[in-house]
Amino acid sequence: MPNVVDDIVAEVAALCRENRDGAVADYIPELASVPADEFALCIATTDGYVYESGSARTEFTIQSISKPFTYGLALADNGPAAVAAKVDVEPSGEPFNEISLDPVTERPRNPMINAGAITSAALIHGADVAERFERIRRCYSRYAGRELTMNDAVYHSEAKTGHRNRAIGHMLRSFGIVTGNPDDAVDLYFRQCSIDVTCRDLALMAATMANNGINPVTHERALATEQIERVLSVMTTCGMYDAAGDWVARVGLPAKSGVGGGVLAVLPGQIGIAVYSPRLDAHGNSVRGVQACSELSKRLELHFMHVTRAARSAIRSQYTIAEAPSRQRRTDTERTTLSQFGNRARIYELHGDLLFAGAETAVREITDHGDDLDAVVIDIRRIDDVSAVANRMIADMQAALNDRGCRTALVDPDGMLGRTTSSVLIDDPDGRVFVDIDAAAQWCEDVVLDRYCFVDRQPKRVDLARHPLLATLTSEQFERFALEIERRTFTRGEVVVRRGEQASGIHFLLEGQISSTLTDAQGRTRRVATLSPGMSFGEMAQLVAEPYLYDVRADSAVQLAVLPAERFADLTASAPGLKLALLERLAAGAYAQMDSAIRSIALRSGGF
Amino acid sequence: MPNVVDDIVAEVAALCRENRDGAVADYIPELASVPADEFALCIATTDGYVYESGSARTEFTIQSISKPFTYGLALADNGPAAVAAKVDVEPSGEPFNEISLDPVTERPRNPMINAGAITSAALIHGADVAERFERIRRCYSRYAGRELTMNDAVYHSEAKTGHRNRAIGHMLRSFGIVTGNPDDAVDLYFRQCSIDVTCRDLALMAATMANNGINPVTHERALATEQIERVLSVMTTCGMYDAAGDWVARVGLPAKSGVGGGVLAVLPGQIGIAVYSPRLDAHGNSVRGVQACSELSKRLELHFMHVTRAARSAIRSQYTIAEAPSRQRRTDTERTTLSQFGNRARIYELHGDLLFAGAETAVREITDHGDDLDAVVIDIRRIDDVSAVANRMIADMQAALNDRGCRTALVDPDGMLGRTTSSVLIDDPDGRVFVDIDAAAQWCEDVVLDRYCFVDRQPKRVDLARHPLLATLTSEQFERFALEIERRTFTRGEVVVRRGEQASGIHFLLEGQISSTLTDAQGRTRRVATLSPGMSFGEMAQLVAEPYLYDVRADSAVQLAVLPAERFADLTASAPGLKLALLERLAAGAYAQMDSAIRSIALRSGGF
Repeated sequence: MPNVVDDIVAEVAALCRENRDGAVADYIPELASVPADEFALCIATTDGYVYESGSARTEFTIQSISKPFTYGLALADNGPAAVAAKVDVEPSGEPFNEISLDPVTERPRNPMINAGAITSAALIHGADVAERFERIRRCYSRYAGRELTMNDAVYHSEAKTGHRNRAIGHMLRSFGIVTGNPDDAVDLYFRQCSIDVTCRDLALMAATMANNGINPVTHERALATEQIERVLSVMTTCGMYDAAGDWVARVGLPAKSGVGGGVLAVLPGQIGIAVYSPRLDAHGNSVRGVQACSELSKRLELHFMHVTRAARSAIRSQYTIAEAPSRQRRTDTERTTLSQFGNRARIYELHGDLLFAGAETAVREITDHGDDLDAVVIDIRRIDDVSAVANRMIADMQAALNDRGCRTALVDPDGMLGRTTSSVLIDDPDGRVFVDIDAAAQWCEDVVLDRYCFVDRQPKRVDLARHPLLATLTSEQFERFALEIERRTFTRGEVVVRRGEQASGIHFLLEGQISSTLTDAQGRTRRVATLSPGMSFGEMAQLVAEPYLYDVRADSAVQLAVLPAERFADLTASAPGLKLALLERLAAGAYAQMDSAIRSIALRSGGF
Repeated sequence: MPNVVDDIVAEVAALCRENRDGAVADYIPELASVPADEFALCIATTDGYVYESGSARTEFTIQSISKPFTYGLALADNGPAAVAAKVDVEPSGEPFNEISLDPVTERPRNPMINAGAITSAALIHGADVAERFERIRRCYSRYAGRELTMNDAVYHSEAKTGHRNRAIGHMLRSFGIVTGNPDDAVDLYFRQCSIDVTCRDLALMAATMANNGINPVTHERALATEQIERVLSVMTTCGMYDAAGDWVARVGLPAKSGVGGGVLAVLPGQIGIAVYSPRLDAHGNSVRGVQACSELSKRLELHFMHVTRAARSAIRSQYTIAEAPSRQRRTDTERTTLSQFGNRARIYELHGDLLFAGAETAVREITDHGDDLDAVVIDIRRIDDVSAVANRMIADMQAALNDRGCRTALVDPDGMLGRTTSSVLIDDPDGRVFVDIDAAAQWCEDVVLDRYCFVDRQPKRVDLARHPLLATLTSEQFERFALEIERRTFTRGEVVVRRGEQASGIHFLLEGQISSTLTDAQGRTRRVATLSPGMSFGEMAQLVAEPYLYDVRADSAVQLAVLPAERFADLTASAPGLKLALLERLAAGAYAQMDSAIRSIALRSGGF
């Protein structure tokens, strides 16, 4: 079904079709013979979708729209310095076919006037005109995503009548700008101008430019990114003949027009636009082409100086580990320390594209807080793209914070900043990189605890009799309980229980560390909780005789005391008092965990 | 502490200070007498922070940098059409002080050459030169955020020697471009050029332009957004005298320089840059000013044709309600229907800035799925900004989907799209707007259930004896249980229990609907679950004798059967069999809820 963009394209097309101003180029019969009121409008996206209106598949010769593409190939063949020595990039304020050079530099003013375009053609590498033309044709074809061909009739007609361009060629030769045979350069230029394209081709060529030089359909590279930037810059100031200033003010897109009636415009990073309508205005630009681009720019808000809002900080939200604790269970003393000193570890969630301005604001804010912090975590999971300067800014800030005693870590599961992720268990002196926020929050807590908590830290092991979850049992109840227990050991990485398995008992952790995890929508493993000696799991599943909700794995060598499922069930009849006592204590722990999970989910952005 | 931007600024400043090329302007003694090697570099952000290097507080006259500001004021005073009738916007390719008009249009080529600038000055409204100048001075002061003043010595010196500009004034008068006294217009121009600014001032003036015309420190508006766009466009093609093309290619920022040694550059939406260094090149641009801007553009990746990556779809993730159900508890038949038909309701999470290109891809993808869907929810909570065209595209898409029988809703708690939010309980024919994703997911489920589930829907009321949670009790247990029950009623909106209150019993819902909610970090109320007749709450809190984790409110008139806390406790002694039977059934329900919550959190982005 047609969507709203089709509607907008149709509206603009209808508006433009009413306009009968201008006249078809008539300096050669082949151009004068085209139907004057033909009209096509295409928009190509950087994912390769093309909106078409009118005669989008009608072929016409590319003419001057070829100039930026040959200029780009000349840059690729010779490098920007060698090209700059032959052709300037200044708007000329003069007609495109002027037989003159800049009086000061003695070079063509820019590559978009004929003198500059013939110079570009002369710079294309190749053994002879045929090979050089074939390289040009293949280059244009990469932009279009299909094999383009030359229109012989138009070429021969241009070659027969192009005295003015021959004059320019010889002028260029006389000033030493063109060093070979000037007729060859002019011939090559005539050939490139005679390549047939459709409006759809031009839109895809523009989209290839918008897409940093990569064709969005074939994914073939047509030109390197730096060269695309230079070509677009020259199109901005010189692309619309001597109406470039008005074009920038009204339309605000780098563009190029041709006397064949085509106009091509580029919104970098976003879309390519092409219009075909042969009637030209006094500048040599397609009347409806200018009108259609101007209307689209207004309606779709494409003007490159149009900014919907000022840059904002890249910081989406921030919180301390006192506000949003990790899922690592802690001893009472540890919890007290964390509630007192947890505001000395702060987590910053960044978002959006991390370019200079957004990174600057974020770095400034984090640096300003730095003196009051022992640990900073920078969570870049919501960052879509990072510029090189922003990456350097983050790294430099981390180094500066570290110098002042504030440790830093990143949450960067996709390696956006190009650094290696670290295990939560291994200390990495050059700044940590975590794959999830919870591991980073736990690391923050450990930093704070190492600095402020010296007693009653999580024990390395507990005896069953000292297991805190059994503390409320009477000694008779404990003795009865101990009879039912099985001991189990696991090595690091081993699976203790799996999501979906039927509950197999209540597990009391005596030694080592285990984590429960879940696989998310993206197929990534996410930690739900990490347990240390003195903690337990499996009680809820057991109570309700349901399958496990999580995978549980040993993070280290682990020793467990397990009350197996069937023995737990039997307690209802054989020792109901013991069972109720166990249940109340275990449920209270599960309840506290739920509360903590709810608090941290509510606090972290987008948790609900 | 200095951050990495200070370091980059210092590096660029050190590099530029080594450059001794160029000469100070000497056409009037006051300009020739400034210290030639003075240097300052400032970057101002759109939140008003200024990075300063060198003599950032040294005053110098603004000279030609005044031109875009007066042009902007002329646009505000007269409107763009009246200004366009007097001055073109084409790059001239000629020196700035040329005594000539465009031979075809007989207008000054653009407002950045002297002829165009004097024309702009002549267009400023006011009773006399003094009043017009005061309006100009106040206008510039709004950009700078402080009261600027005129340098009398420079003004008198310019007024004494400015014959060339007087000649331009009379030429403009002779062509009817200036209609009043041309000497007044030229005098006004001399005064505006003689306003003293510092490098810091210029950076803030540039930042005001970057900030859509609003001073980032005072928040005063200096110029309307549309006019800022036009001024920046003209600066792009004409701002750097006859080196505009090279500037765009190398620096890629709209800019303006002055013979006083200042250069001002703008990255729209992001930052303003200013450099002060009096030695000028052959074009009249500050040598180090050009160098510093070029270096900053490269190092900070500021070139406006620099695109780090192509536009991507605004869709961050998508899922069906079969994959991520709402927290509304459902009957078994309803659950079966939802697992069978839940893929006919799809939730799309959008993110980033919703401009044309991103919206286009999203609309295309959603529309393509439309034929297979009964309900679509568009979640725009992660959208930072919406352009007008994107807003229209979303609305048009909703209308088109609706025409094809697919109902649509938005999740838009902040009213980004400007539509009124709806209650989950009230049907709103023009497309729903929800404040949270769960209410929207419930609405989706209701749409699917209304279309595909015709039996065993959630009842409007249940008798206590039919309450599903009591179904496993023996008739003796039920009779014993019924003795302990209290009946309670609540009206719509009434609080049933509050977070933090001690558990007050197990609540069996017989009639009406209740919701548990939580207040998040942003102070917003978030729904945790909604319960219908036949469901219960409070059992977990009761079991562990802990305070409630949620607020619970009546969404409608409600009837509850409550087993009060103390009677529940007494059951341990008086009826342990009944208590265990109750516990197991209630815990199973709580466990299933946790599982459903975990699944939907894991699936929705950023949930962990």
